[in-house]
Amino acid sequence: MTKVLQQPLKPILRINFPGQDRLGRGKMELLEHIRETGSISAAGRAMDMSYRRAWLLISELNHMFQEPVVESQRGGQNGGGAALTPFGEELLRRFRGMEDSVRAAIASDLEWLEANRNPGDAVAEPQAES
Amino acid sequence: MTKVLQQPLKPILRINFPGQDRLGRGKMELLEHIRETGSISAAGRAMDMSYRRAWLLISELNHMFQEPVVESQRGGQNGGGAALTPFGEELLRRFRGMEDSVRAAIASDLEWLEANRNPGDAVAEPQAES
Repeated sequence: MTKVLQQPLKPILRINFPGQDRLGRGKMELLEHIRETGSISAAGRAMDMSYRRAWLLISELNHMFQEPVVESQRGGQNGGGAALTPFGEELLRRFRGMEDSVRAAIASDLEWLEANRNPGDAVAEPQAES
Repeated sequence: MTKVLQQPLKPILRINFPGQDRLGRGKMELLEHIRETGSISAAGRAMDMSYRRAWLLISELNHMFQEPVVESQRGGQNGGGAALTPFGEELLRRFRGMEDSVRAAIASDLEWLEANRNPGDAVAEPQAES
C-alpha cells in the first residue's frame, strides 16, 4: 500500500516596524548562528548568505532597538568576532516564544486548513516491488 | 511641546503550504474586494494589481484547497463576475480570526518590543509657531 506523506502547513510570523524594517525568522536564524559560531561571516555562510548581506541584516537589527543586538568582540585568539548582547539574547528568546505562542493560538485553525487543503501536493512513498 | 507619533508594530501572519503556495493577507484582501465588488478585475484595481496577477492569485487559492474559493458567475445584468464560495467565505473568516488570535497571543511580547524599539522612527508633530 502506498503511504502518502504530507508536509505540514507552516505558520510564519513577521513583525513589521515603521519604514522597511522587519523582524522575522531570517534575522533570528542569523542570531542563532552567530551565537553558535561567534562570527557574522560564519553565520552568513551557514545560511548561504554573503558576509555583506549578513552584516547589513545585523546592522538593521542593531538600529531597530534602543540597544544593540550583536556586538563585535575584539582581540582574543581568533582576532575578533561577534556575540549577542544580553538584549540580543532576550530578543531571540522572545521571538522564538512568540512563534510558539502563534502556533498554539492558531492550532485548531491550522487543523481546519489541513483538513481542507488539496492533498495533491502529498508525496507518495514508492510501493514495494511485487 | 512637540508631540511624537509612533506607528505601531504590526504582526503579520502567513501560512506556508508545501511548494511555493502561501496563504496571507494579500490573498485575503483580494477576497474581501471580490466580495465587495463582485469582480476579480475590480478587486485587482482596488489593490493596484493587474487583472492577470489577481487572476493568478485566485487561481492559486482555488488549487490549494479541496474546494474552490472563488467561483465565476455567468449571466445576469452585468454579464458575469466573481463571488466567494461558502468555503471561500469560511476561509476568509478563519484567516482574519487567526490574525486576531495571533495579535492576542503575542500582545505582551509586542509591548516589550514597543518598549525597546528605537524611537528614532517616530514622526514629530510640528511645534506651534512661537
